[in-house]
Amino acid sequence: QEAVIRCKAAVAWEFNQPLVIEEVEVAPPQEKEIRIKIVATGVCQSDLYFLSKCSNQTAFPVVFGHEAAGVVESIGPGVTEFQPGDTVIPLFMPQCRECRLCKSPKTNLCVNGCPFERSRISCRGRKLLQFLGTSSFSEFTVVKEMSVAKIDPAAPLDRVCLIGCAICTGYGAAVNTAKVEAGSSCAVFGLGAVGLAAVMGCKAAGASRIIAIDINPDKFEKAKVLGATDVVNPNDHSRPIQQLLQEMTGGGVDFSFECIGNVEVMRSALESCAPGWGVSVIAGWTDMENFSAPPIHLMTGRKWTGTLFGGEKWISASEPAASGVTYLDRKLMVDEFITHNLRLEQINEAVELMKNSRIRAVLSVSPQ
Amino acid sequence: QEAVIRCKAAVAWEFNQPLVIEEVEVAPPQEKEIRIKIVATGVCQSDLYFLSKCSNQTAFPVVFGHEAAGVVESIGPGVTEFQPGDTVIPLFMPQCRECRLCKSPKTNLCVNGCPFERSRISCRGRKLLQFLGTSSFSEFTVVKEMSVAKIDPAAPLDRVCLIGCAICTGYGAAVNTAKVEAGSSCAVFGLGAVGLAAVMGCKAAGASRIIAIDINPDKFEKAKVLGATDVVNPNDHSRPIQQLLQEMTGGGVDFSFECIGNVEVMRSALESCAPGWGVSVIAGWTDMENFSAPPIHLMTGRKWTGTLFGGEKWISASEPAASGVTYLDRKLMVDEFITHNLRLEQINEAVELMKNSRIRAVLSVSPQ
Repeated sequence: QEAVIRCKAAVAWEFNQPLVIEEVEVAPPQEKEIRIKIVATGVCQSDLYFLSKCSNQTAFPVVFGHEAAGVVESIGPGVTEFQPGDTVIPLFMPQCRECRLCKSPKTNLCVNGCPFERSRISCRGRKLLQFLGTSSFSEFTVVKEMSVAKIDPAAPLDRVCLIGCAICTGYGAAVNTAKVEAGSSCAVFGLGAVGLAAVMGCKAAGASRIIAIDINPDKFEKAKVLGATDVVNPNDHSRPIQQLLQEMTGGGVDFSFECIGNVEVMRSALESCAPGWGVSVIAGWTDMENFSAPPIHLMTGRKWTGTLFGGEKWISASEPAASGVTYLDRKLMVDEFITHNLRLEQINEAVELMKNSRIRAVLSVSPQ
Repeated sequence: QEAVIRCKAAVAWEFNQPLVIEEVEVAPPQEKEIRIKIVATGVCQSDLYFLSKCSNQTAFPVVFGHEAAGVVESIGPGVTEFQPGDTVIPLFMPQCRECRLCKSPKTNLCVNGCPFERSRISCRGRKLLQFLGTSSFSEFTVVKEMSVAKIDPAAPLDRVCLIGCAICTGYGAAVNTAKVEAGSSCAVFGLGAVGLAAVMGCKAAGASRIIAIDINPDKFEKAKVLGATDVVNPNDHSRPIQQLLQEMTGGGVDFSFECIGNVEVMRSALESCAPGWGVSVIAGWTDMENFSAPPIHLMTGRKWTGTLFGGEKWISASEPAASGVTYLDRKLMVDEFITHNLRLEQINEAVELMKNSRIRAVLSVSPQ
C-alpha cells in the first residue's frame, strides 16, 4: 500500500485549455496524510472558474476537482482516525481543530485553508498542484487528515459526493449562515446546484415562501421539487427583480441568497430583503469584481454576509458525518441534483455541460 | 394654548447658505400632534449634511434640528399619552406602533419615517418644511405624537437632548445592532459624538479591547474617558489601518463601527473585522457614494450591517424613557460630549464648530 500508485488523472496544464487525461504518479501519504481512491466526483462551477475565468490567481499545472467521495487506500504516519477501507468525503475546507478559527463555534474557516499547494501527484516528472487540498479529478489523491470526513459506508458514493461542495454550500447557507426561520420568506437567486440546495435548506428550516429565481426556466421544475413555492424569471418582467420581490412579499423577503457569483445579482439580492431585518447571504463565488451598494441599504437594518461550504463544520471525523446518515434517511435530497453520469475520461464533456448550466454532472472515477 | 405662537427659529432658506434667525409662526397642533417648546438642541452632522452636502435630496426652505429636548406646550385632539408640561425628546424616527415594522421587535424603523414634510411652521406667509419630523432649531415646533418620547422630568434637558440622536445612535450601534459581546475586541472609526457613544456602548457591553480611531488626535482624550483602551491615528502608520488592526488583534476585531459616513472608511472597518465572525456596523451617514468590497470579505463569514438611531425603540411613550433614567444614574455619560454651549441665535457659529469637527455644540433655545 505504501508504493507509488500509477493511475489516471485529468490534468489542467494551462489556463482555459481542455483538461488532459494523463497517467500520473501518486506518492504515498506522508505524516498525517491519507491516500484516497476517488470513486466519484462532481464537476463544480468553482473548478471551471479557476480553470477558465480567473487567470491571475490560478497556478498550473493543477489537478482540479473538490466535490468527491472515495475510499481510504492507505494512511501516513500519525493518522489515527482513519483506516484503509473507510468511506470518506475530502473536505476542501480543512478542519485542523487546533487553530483559533477551528476552536470557534462561529465559523468553519481554518487557518490551513489554501487554494493551491503542492500535491503528491506528478506527471512525467513534473509535480502537479493540488486544488483546495483535494484534487479529486484523479483516480487517487493524497489529502491531509484534517481535510477528510468519514461518512456512513452505506451511502452511495456516486451521489453523496455532491455533499462535498454544492449541497452543503447551499443547504448550509440557509440553515447555518442565514439561520432561516420557520414561516419566513426567502428568495434564492440562481438555480444551479448551490441554489437548489439553498431552496432545500429554506424548506428544511420551515420557510413558508421560497421564491426561486433564474433566467433559465428549465430550472424551475427541479426547484419546485426541492421546495420552491414560487418561481420567477426576471426576463419575464420589465421592472427590476428586487422591486418585484418587494411587491410580491409586501416589503421584501426575510432572507435572500446569491448563488451565482455575480456582483449585480448580489446587490439585487440585498435590495430584495426587507428593511429592518432582511439577511442576504452571498454563496456564489467571484473575485473579479467588487459588489457595491448605497450605505442606506445596510443602515436600514439589512445584514449582508456570505458563506463558504455553508458554514458546515465537521465536528468529528471519527464518526460518520451526519450528512451521510441524513442522505440515507432521505432527509436530504441528493439524487435530484444529478443530471448527468459520466466517466472521468469524459471530463471535458462534463465541463461543457456545466458551462451550459446543466445542473450537475457526476463522474465515475475509480470502481469502488 | 391653542393659538398660533410667534417665536424665533433658524430658517434654512437655501442650500449651503447660513441659517437665518427669523420670527416664525407655529400653528397649533392638529389631530395627534404635539406642540413642544424646545429647550435645547444639539447640532448634528446630519443637519449639516442636508444643509450643505446633499443638495439634490434637500428641499428648502426648511427648519433643521433633530437632536433636542423640550416641554410639551399643548396637545392636539386625540393625543392621549402626553400632557402639557411633560418633558420630552422628539424622535426623528417615529414609532406608530401599528405598522409591520413597528410590530417587529427586530427593527426600530417605522413606515412613517420621512426626511422632509410640511411643518406647522411658517415664515412671512411661506410654509417651511420639517426635517425628520422634528425641526428643533425653533423655539417651538409641532411633531406627531408618534414622534415623541417622554423622559424623566429630573433629567437636564440641555444635556439629555444628545440622547435624541448621537448618543443613541452610537451606543445603540454597539449594544443593539452589533450586540457587542463581553470580552470582545472592537474598533470605532471616527470619534465624533456618534463614535464616542459607540465607544461607551462597547464598554457598557463588556468589550475588553476598544480601539478608537481618528485622524484628529485631539479626540483621543475623550475617547479614553468613555472607555477606549487603545487610540490609533491612521496617519501615524504607513500600512493601512485595517492591516494594523489585524496585527494588533491577531486576526481582526470582533466588532467594528463606521461613525463618519465615508465609504472608504466603511470598507476599512469591514476589512478590520475578523474573518469568520466579525460584525461591521455602518453608523455614519452618506448617500453620495456607494460602498464596495470584494465578495470574499463576506463569504469568509463577516457580517455587514448598519443602524439608524442605534436600533433604539421606544417601547412606551407613556413611561419615562429608560435613557433619561440611565443618565440620572450616571450609567450613561452625556455631559462629556458637550464641548460648546451656545444660544439658538449663535447657530451659524455652532455650524462652523461642527464643520471643524468639534464634538458637540448644544444650543439653548427656549428657557425651560
